[in-house]
Amino acid sequence: MNEFELIQALTKELPAHQNVFIGPGDDCAVLDLGIPDRYLLFKTDAVVEGIHFEPTTDPEKVGHKALGRCLSDIAAMAGDPTAALITLALPSGFDPGWVQKLYAGIQRLAARYDVPIAGGETTTNPNGRLISVSLVGTVPKSRCISRTGAKVGDAIFVTGELGGSLRGKHLEFEPRINQGKWLASNFELHSMIDLSDGVAGDLRHLLRPVKVGAELLSEAIPISRAAKLQAREGSARKPPLLAALSDGEDFELLFTIASKEAVRLVDAWKKEFPKLRLSCIGKIVSGSAIKLRDREGLRELKLGGYTHFEKPTSS
Amino acid sequence: MNEFELIQALTKELPAHQNVFIGPGDDCAVLDLGIPDRYLLFKTDAVVEGIHFEPTTDPEKVGHKALGRCLSDIAAMAGDPTAALITLALPSGFDPGWVQKLYAGIQRLAARYDVPIAGGETTTNPNGRLISVSLVGTVPKSRCISRTGAKVGDAIFVTGELGGSLRGKHLEFEPRINQGKWLASNFELHSMIDLSDGVAGDLRHLLRPVKVGAELLSEAIPISRAAKLQAREGSARKPPLLAALSDGEDFELLFTIASKEAVRLVDAWKKEFPKLRLSCIGKIVSGSAIKLRDREGLRELKLGGYTHFEKPTSS
Repeated sequence: MNEFELIQALTKELPAHQNVFIGPGDDCAVLDLGIPDRYLLFKTDAVVEGIHFEPTTDPEKVGHKALGRCLSDIAAMAGDPTAALITLALPSGFDPGWVQKLYAGIQRLAARYDVPIAGGETTTNPNGRLISVSLVGTVPKSRCISRTGAKVGDAIFVTGELGGSLRGKHLEFEPRINQGKWLASNFELHSMIDLSDGVAGDLRHLLRPVKVGAELLSEAIPISRAAKLQAREGSARKPPLLAALSDGEDFELLFTIASKEAVRLVDAWKKEFPKLRLSCIGKIVSGSAIKLRDREGLRELKLGGYTHFEKPTSS
Repeated sequence: MNEFELIQALTKELPAHQNVFIGPGDDCAVLDLGIPDRYLLFKTDAVVEGIHFEPTTDPEKVGHKALGRCLSDIAAMAGDPTAALITLALPSGFDPGWVQKLYAGIQRLAARYDVPIAGGETTTNPNGRLISVSLVGTVPKSRCISRTGAKVGDAIFVTGELGGSLRGKHLEFEPRINQGKWLASNFELHSMIDLSDGVAGDLRHLLRPVKVGAELLSEAIPISRAAKLQAREGSARKPPLLAALSDGEDFELLFTIASKEAVRLVDAWKKEFPKLRLSCIGKIVSGSAIKLRDREGLRELKLGGYTHFEKPTSS
């Protein structure tokens, strides 16, 4: 049983509750606690030494990543972050200087989004450092974007560029808080998720709940410079396109919107965020597979990468 | 630098924020997010294998403890718990059966207080199990009890019985949610905290912020059966009274209230919670020390235990 299967097994039996508008399985929990016209967003996420960062990683960047991951999930609901708690689990005899730099990284990012660190705790973790961040936020009820609204015919968009995050971006990414809020304020998005496992993995979270498929255009995938460099230097195990589709920790937003809105969106985006790329990478179709169209035809994309060609067509 | 000093150093520089009514240093963070007449309570707490439980500890009890610790902090603000998120950090190759029992323990306690588990995540922690619980709750603004309201002349009360928790109670305690709410609904408490480090340690958190002292009556301290048994069997390093005052993880409520309210409180408590002891253990005085009065006189209580006699008096 892997992690995903375990969480699914444990949480599918959880009883529904009148306070919980969206429970396990979305980017954040969404609670109705009586804030007029708004939901409370509630998220927790941990980074672990040896898994999400190395002993030698700059602690300010570790702090940035720890908080940034939670902020990215708030962004994926089009929410506003409100306050964070920090849990530090540290080996005994830890270096206070390391912890102070960690906090400096957390604080700098927190200040950028006006998120107070309202408390937390320090405990002992005998064999390594672990930082768990809890975050609350709010979102107008009419603008909360879940994972479960994709419709056949929707255009699929992604912010930024994809792939090669481990070369540095995973420690320095900017959570798309401002973009998520702007999108939901100006357009009727149908579904949204932040990319932590790559398009090939995370797009499935938008497809499965509503039983639809997707067709992506290989030429439209925004491949990052890091993914290209990685391939050129021979350090990558996969070509740039596959890296862009399957590398983890991009922390970009992936969303769907009625295709008739696509042109207006692209125009407005260019004015609002001229320095950040927005790409229409494909469309929602019937079925359940993710298919990739390139010059050679249409083939199915599986989690591990490409599989067989389906039916060669001229392009 | 120990944990407390580190947290203090890191959080004292945290900027104030208009959403944060009470920040670091109380049982929970208290946020004003626009819920009519209520504050949001926000808490996170972790239990770690080898520190808070053993590899052989019944996982259902580990789950109970993990959630119970957070609930106890909500109780200490007189709050209502609303929803929890569970972060599991587990070694690779973990036993799914252990995790299922852990969840069963969490769920049973959550159900008792109508707290939905609204999500969470599982991550890898290479060398041991760690369970971090995040909890939100709410409290009527007029009834939120902080640590900072004790007044000279207040009576000091404690629920339940103290000491020897490691013999079993630390895994099975009942968080005093119902008592906290009832107390704040029916009486004007001045300050409250839950006991995680013993009266000798935690009472100081009620005294220091308002620069007062306390005088305890040794005969009034409710010593648990476990603390007495422990001493009788010779397994304790300290006599029962000292165990009651300094053992950790009692998770009882310690609070102060105007002394003129004490009799009405005791009478009403007996009717409402006939099976749970409530003890008036002393009073708030001027000064800054915690002093203990017994037959031999008045002596100062320090964190590690008794110190010198101050001035012997007849009793």
